[in-house]
Amino acid sequence: MKIAVLGTGGGGRAHAARLLELGHDVYVGTRDIEATLARTEPDMMGNPPYKQFLADHPGITLLPFADAADAADFVINGIDGASALKALTAIADRLTGKVLIDYAVPYLYNPQVEHPWPTPWGVMPRLDPCDTDSLAEQIQRALPQTKVVKAFVTQEQDTVVNPKAIGGGDHTMFVASDHADAKQTATDLLKAYGWTDILDLGALVAARGMEMYGHMHAAIGMALGMGNHFGVKIVR
Amino acid sequence: MKIAVLGTGGGGRAHAARLLELGHDVYVGTRDIEATLARTEPDMMGNPPYKQFLADHPGITLLPFADAADAADFVINGIDGASALKALTAIADRLTGKVLIDYAVPYLYNPQVEHPWPTPWGVMPRLDPCDTDSLAEQIQRALPQTKVVKAFVTQEQDTVVNPKAIGGGDHTMFVASDHADAKQTATDLLKAYGWTDILDLGALVAARGMEMYGHMHAAIGMALGMGNHFGVKIVR
Repeated sequence: MKIAVLGTGGGGRAHAARLLELGHDVYVGTRDIEATLARTEPDMMGNPPYKQFLADHPGITLLPFADAADAADFVINGIDGASALKALTAIADRLTGKVLIDYAVPYLYNPQVEHPWPTPWGVMPRLDPCDTDSLAEQIQRALPQTKVVKAFVTQEQDTVVNPKAIGGGDHTMFVASDHADAKQTATDLLKAYGWTDILDLGALVAARGMEMYGHMHAAIGMALGMGNHFGVKIVR
Repeated sequence: MKIAVLGTGGGGRAHAARLLELGHDVYVGTRDIEATLARTEPDMMGNPPYKQFLADHPGITLLPFADAADAADFVINGIDGASALKALTAIADRLTGKVLIDYAVPYLYNPQVEHPWPTPWGVMPRLDPCDTDSLAEQIQRALPQTKVVKAFVTQEQDTVVNPKAIGGGDHTMFVASDHADAKQTATDLLKAYGWTDILDLGALVAARGMEMYGHMHAAIGMALGMGNHFGVKIVR
């Protein structure tokens, strides 16, 4: 299939590399191709320059956001939570009729503007929206002709694309959407990644809990220690 | 040991019954003993009148909040999230020097006042505080001489006191506190209940994620269907 991955961060790279490995045509969308290729230093998360990633993964096509969406059967949103709504709204016409799998957490990172809260492990961003709305619902409202499905967000990036790397894959992935076919698209992709326990949380309103789980996910990660990967399983 | 359980709802009953079974002296605290014993109808959650519960569990001592706290080596807070801070602050002197295990979720239930949000399964309360503070931290700030530990909140009430009822007990319980001895008290109790995987999430700030997990917990519960119990396991 032709699959677009919007965003060049760690999550987007994990999906792009795995989709390529699975034999798909992968179109990665970025805001500014020249700027993306011009970088020679690791990004703020320590990822090597994207030019290096492309050299290591021949076959990935780098395009502007709009053209990547245009080329694809469905789209994975890997744009960071603070930028996603604006960036996706700007290419709304290219996303018409398509499934958009969103895994962003709406963290606000700017300490001058956004009043982050201190934690034992330093400063953590706060969530906006939170509790009474979700980023996924904001995107769905802004793009009524697109079929938004929330997924991936409750697991580590590398685990999402390769669940069997932890506990033999015996853990749980969640999906939520107001569109049954969008959930099916996400579920088919997840099965291709290796997921066997995929729990349908119902309508997109469930994205609130999925995004708000971000703080719990961070706390568990810090408790286990950096580099000790983990998954979440619903035992029943 | 002498253990106080504040609150006469479903969670408080689960703890009181299990602690009695484990051979402890159980003091249940209530706002108004006469009112509690006068009820002849099930409460809003469908629990039978407390008088019936007491008759079925001889040995439990019902006392006013303050006297129950006074009688105990440590205290479990089973007062609902909307009332807990006020009720505990009112008996702050009786909780001085004691460990308080809190599992409340700060849900706001009043639809006239609190702007609940609609979900596929009806109307759900919103959380207050949320994201940048937690009820557990509010309680700790209001009761600086008490050692607050957050626990239990991420699992179903009946599962907390009997983890082996689901998946053979192979799931995870979390604790968070600014006081190591409070975490130890909660951990010892959890082990007595049957927990084997207890993950220390660090300082009480982690209670934010634990309380915010409430929406995810509700969504999972609704997805699995009423009466299908579940637990959360961190696979690593």
